[in-house]
Amino acid sequence: MEGFPLGDEAHMPNLNAVLPSEIDRILSSVNDTNKRATLLATMCRINTLYMIARAGSGHIGSSFSCLDMVAWLYLNRVGPIHGKTLPDLFFSSKGHDAPALYSVLIALKLLPFEKIHSLRRLDGLPGHPDISIPHISTNTGSLGMGISKAKGLIQANRISGTKQNIFVMTGDGELQEGQIWESLMGATNAGMHELTVIVDHNKIQSDHWVSSTSDLGRLDERFKSFGWNVLRCDGHDTGQFSLAVKETDTSDKPSVIIADTIKGFGVSYLQPTELGDRDFYQFHSGALSQDNYAQAIEELCESANKQLKNSGSLPLNLETYEHEASSSLSPRENLIPAYSEALLKGGQENKNIVVLDADLVLDCGLVPFRETFPERYIECGIAEMDMVSQAGGLALAGKLPIVHSFACFLTPRANEQIYNNASERTKVIYVGGLAGVLPAGPGHSHQSVRDIALMSCIPNLIAIEPHSAEETKIAVNWMLNHTDQICYLRLTSIPVSLGFTSPEIDSFTPGQGTIIRDGTDGTILAYGPVMLAEAVAAAQLLEHNQDLKVRVINFPWLNLIDSEWLCEILNDTSYLMTVDNHYLSGGVGERVATTLMENGLSGSLGVKRVGINEVPVCGTNEEALSFHGLDRDSLSKSFLELRNDRKQNQF
Amino acid sequence: MEGFPLGDEAHMPNLNAVLPSEIDRILSSVNDTNKRATLLATMCRINTLYMIARAGSGHIGSSFSCLDMVAWLYLNRVGPIHGKTLPDLFFSSKGHDAPALYSVLIALKLLPFEKIHSLRRLDGLPGHPDISIPHISTNTGSLGMGISKAKGLIQANRISGTKQNIFVMTGDGELQEGQIWESLMGATNAGMHELTVIVDHNKIQSDHWVSSTSDLGRLDERFKSFGWNVLRCDGHDTGQFSLAVKETDTSDKPSVIIADTIKGFGVSYLQPTELGDRDFYQFHSGALSQDNYAQAIEELCESANKQLKNSGSLPLNLETYEHEASSSLSPRENLIPAYSEALLKGGQENKNIVVLDADLVLDCGLVPFRETFPERYIECGIAEMDMVSQAGGLALAGKLPIVHSFACFLTPRANEQIYNNASERTKVIYVGGLAGVLPAGPGHSHQSVRDIALMSCIPNLIAIEPHSAEETKIAVNWMLNHTDQICYLRLTSIPVSLGFTSPEIDSFTPGQGTIIRDGTDGTILAYGPVMLAEAVAAAQLLEHNQDLKVRVINFPWLNLIDSEWLCEILNDTSYLMTVDNHYLSGGVGERVATTLMENGLSGSLGVKRVGINEVPVCGTNEEALSFHGLDRDSLSKSFLELRNDRKQNQF
Repeated sequence: MEGFPLGDEAHMPNLNAVLPSEIDRILSSVNDTNKRATLLATMCRINTLYMIARAGSGHIGSSFSCLDMVAWLYLNRVGPIHGKTLPDLFFSSKGHDAPALYSVLIALKLLPFEKIHSLRRLDGLPGHPDISIPHISTNTGSLGMGISKAKGLIQANRISGTKQNIFVMTGDGELQEGQIWESLMGATNAGMHELTVIVDHNKIQSDHWVSSTSDLGRLDERFKSFGWNVLRCDGHDTGQFSLAVKETDTSDKPSVIIADTIKGFGVSYLQPTELGDRDFYQFHSGALSQDNYAQAIEELCESANKQLKNSGSLPLNLETYEHEASSSLSPRENLIPAYSEALLKGGQENKNIVVLDADLVLDCGLVPFRETFPERYIECGIAEMDMVSQAGGLALAGKLPIVHSFACFLTPRANEQIYNNASERTKVIYVGGLAGVLPAGPGHSHQSVRDIALMSCIPNLIAIEPHSAEETKIAVNWMLNHTDQICYLRLTSIPVSLGFTSPEIDSFTPGQGTIIRDGTDGTILAYGPVMLAEAVAAAQLLEHNQDLKVRVINFPWLNLIDSEWLCEILNDTSYLMTVDNHYLSGGVGERVATTLMENGLSGSLGVKRVGINEVPVCGTNEEALSFHGLDRDSLSKSFLELRNDRKQNQF
Repeated sequence: MEGFPLGDEAHMPNLNAVLPSEIDRILSSVNDTNKRATLLATMCRINTLYMIARAGSGHIGSSFSCLDMVAWLYLNRVGPIHGKTLPDLFFSSKGHDAPALYSVLIALKLLPFEKIHSLRRLDGLPGHPDISIPHISTNTGSLGMGISKAKGLIQANRISGTKQNIFVMTGDGELQEGQIWESLMGATNAGMHELTVIVDHNKIQSDHWVSSTSDLGRLDERFKSFGWNVLRCDGHDTGQFSLAVKETDTSDKPSVIIADTIKGFGVSYLQPTELGDRDFYQFHSGALSQDNYAQAIEELCESANKQLKNSGSLPLNLETYEHEASSSLSPRENLIPAYSEALLKGGQENKNIVVLDADLVLDCGLVPFRETFPERYIECGIAEMDMVSQAGGLALAGKLPIVHSFACFLTPRANEQIYNNASERTKVIYVGGLAGVLPAGPGHSHQSVRDIALMSCIPNLIAIEPHSAEETKIAVNWMLNHTDQICYLRLTSIPVSLGFTSPEIDSFTPGQGTIIRDGTDGTILAYGPVMLAEAVAAAQLLEHNQDLKVRVINFPWLNLIDSEWLCEILNDTSYLMTVDNHYLSGGVGERVATTLMENGLSGSLGVKRVGINEVPVCGTNEEALSFHGLDRDSLSKSFLELRNDRKQNQF
């Protein structure tokens, strides 16, 4: 559901946007409300591209497919501009289309224009919707929750005796989530005529066609069978869409408008016309390359100008902004390709391995396994609960299932199913990608900082987070071949400049870490590439600025501590700082401190835990680390505070 | 989904069962296979009643509604008696009907007859299915997972090149769970003709009619719209059922048999013929009173004898067993009525309170609120995810939603939805009943020993577990009126003989506990009625046997510690034992130990954590506490061990 910048090393000197004054001019030059919506959508596509190019990531395809409808809704029904006390409400359940929504809000001056420069930045516009932004009414981005949220809002309105229509946009891949269907029944039974769901039926999900991932079948019939009023239209034909919306007004049932759309609509090469069943759609998320960007702007301008010519208006005028493209040349540790390789090797050695995925085959690094062992690869679609319970069935039948999704979805959404499998005492391996607070651009729906807590209360489960490609391979091999326990592999998905050379790992002993950097003035214990990079850099700062030699320990065992080893390695240290790329509650630091307490190793040892304690912020990776006190500067400061606090206590 | 013995103080001197030899005689006296199934079901109803009466709890209604079909399947298709290498497989997704399944397995000698005496006992037959029992193929009981499990088994069979039909029984209320619909799609797309789902459509869920709880609408159409082969029959007419099963054999799609049944079928007063829309069905779970039991046996015998007479056989002969009815006369602390009262008071004082429930209105103590404020009560059906996200919508609209279910379902199944709500920084109160390891009879699907961990990693959430009726009211008042934070109220549902008089609670200070019993030879910290009762009793044992005076602290703040208070209260103690009615991982003990470590309170203080470390066992409450080392004897032993270990370390 979330990817990474496509044009990683792109240099993009100029970017274009449409200014509010220009939007005003153009909207006022067209009388027909549906045509105005189409024009607005075209301009918003340009601004959406601008935001995503500047941010370096974002969901283009999904934003473009829904934009005509979002533009129409705001021009005609939704938001304070229509003067009603309680105007109609719109929000997107998929949330991936946030840039589209922002561009409409900006165009209609419901958000200040300057915000256009701040997508996925700290205090800017979050990667997925957050109610801290004006006119954003719900937090979405993890799929399937929007209809339920709308039902709650409607229940509240009914209790308060107020009337309001609510439009909820869903994806079509999103309809694979069970909560969608769970939420339909209550709406029917409560006769929620105030509710209209719009399915942005662009027929492509994260990786492939919906039909080849997990076909939705007769979608109209499905909604009808749940007692809903079903309408269908071309989602790029604002005239058709407006008629469909009108029809919902007179329904005494909840309505769904199944809007046939095209992912990436408006730019030729973004549209998946030629895509084969197994080909990847390239523009689900991520920014465009420089050439692609220029071509897209050209096509969108051409489209706008054609519409303007018809109404006798002057062509579109674009503002140009310089773009500081970031480029990183230092070598970066990349865990996902290493995981791919180790998984493939595992598959070759053990015919019982079955791989399950929830629409993230590319992001989770599963392509080599799928290509080599298609008969042992099960694509479940966006259906995490079903995937996990299927894995349970496979394990009962003697297979070794390996289950994949992003950590933020897999570990909370299917938590009871994971526990149920554990109660059967079979072995299942769970792999959570995109773990930890980075990347910070997508925002809190995608930042997994609770998964260690959620998985550590599964009995008989061992959780591991490797920090390097090499350690990833070793961890996978250990999980496959050296334990009968349930395993959770926590993977950082972004490439990280470690800034140090990992020591060769000659043994991988459960509950024991390795020293990355030695020192006698204190110890920092961390895990994973992001925090180890910061911890080592913090130690270097402490050496440079304070002449302190601080040891850094890589501790990949998230819920397993060899207490003898721990006490021994801390024997000569007076200060221990643990660093969690996770909430403090349920993190590794808590487990380390508890072990030390139970083993009586205290008194002389000062312990401090550093980690996350609130909903993580959206921003650049540097912004988020700094905000949460997890960057190298903050870590070195925290370490000094630990020393000073402790010294004061002693004297 | 789970209740408590109805006949709490019932004295039931005699119970009846049908012996295997008698079952053999009767089955061999009837030639027609469908009639044999009906007779077998009738005898199994008698044995099911026996098991449940002996256990003191169990699901009668749901067992009786499915029994004709289960009996037919085992006589004709399922299990090793049919000689095939891989015979057809049957399991129940709802799992509540485990006694029915056990009675059939016992009747067909697939389980030893002696097991009939051991329902819900340690090393006996678990309250919900567990694969440790022969011929039980999956662990179920938490709803909605069965179809996914079957899909996994079928995927494994396909990979291995083996063929097997799988029959999965679901409830009808169970169809409110989103995972059901999530699981249907993949089965359709994979053309899983091996799969047949049988809906035991008895039209009653835990509390009320399905139609008045959350209507399923046109069920046939719903399954059809998902691409399934839909059959319908009378589930008590084994002839009709056999024809439906036959039709599934030739389908190239997955099939569903919607079997119209009657809850409690076979005994007149167990059948809900006269039940109004809001009346409670009384026989979802729990054992019968003595009179009801006798009448049920009489009716079932009469039914069997009528069938036997038709085939010219002698009437049914029953074995009689003496029953040691347990009775508890000591006063018991009961938190649920106190919660009811406090909730009602809250509702009167605050018009913004909206109560949400997932088909547990009775068990969660919501009847008074519902009766008084029907307009602010939302019955969501068995749809925890939808309920939690609806609560999020209500909170966004300024209401104060209070969300109810059993802790075992609410906290893991809707965990991502709870987190999503938290990310909106609104206030929602979550109330999890049936929390902790007791009652132990229902088994691990219902024993909530992970919820503190699952809720403590929700940012800005405070979790509280009161130990008395009085403290429950104080906690509710505090949550409603004295905090803006998200709250989780963890409630023990069984009445508990505390064995001590609770000190009057004059202040309820966040992060601080109260001393229940003082002493200077060490401290036990616990929470909730079950563990405080055992802790105080352990302290009494230690005083009586060892002359040790041990302090017991009631600490209701599950994830919040006032470290200054903690350090002060432990200042004069050398040994601290924490007791978790929860897994050690993520429990209160971990948080206490961490706080002590960070505050440098160690060296002289020996700390030991006691709690659960594995999948909890099914059994009587006493058996489960003892197994997990949480009964008074084990606790006093653990405390002595802590003293001895520490002394050895010191010298």
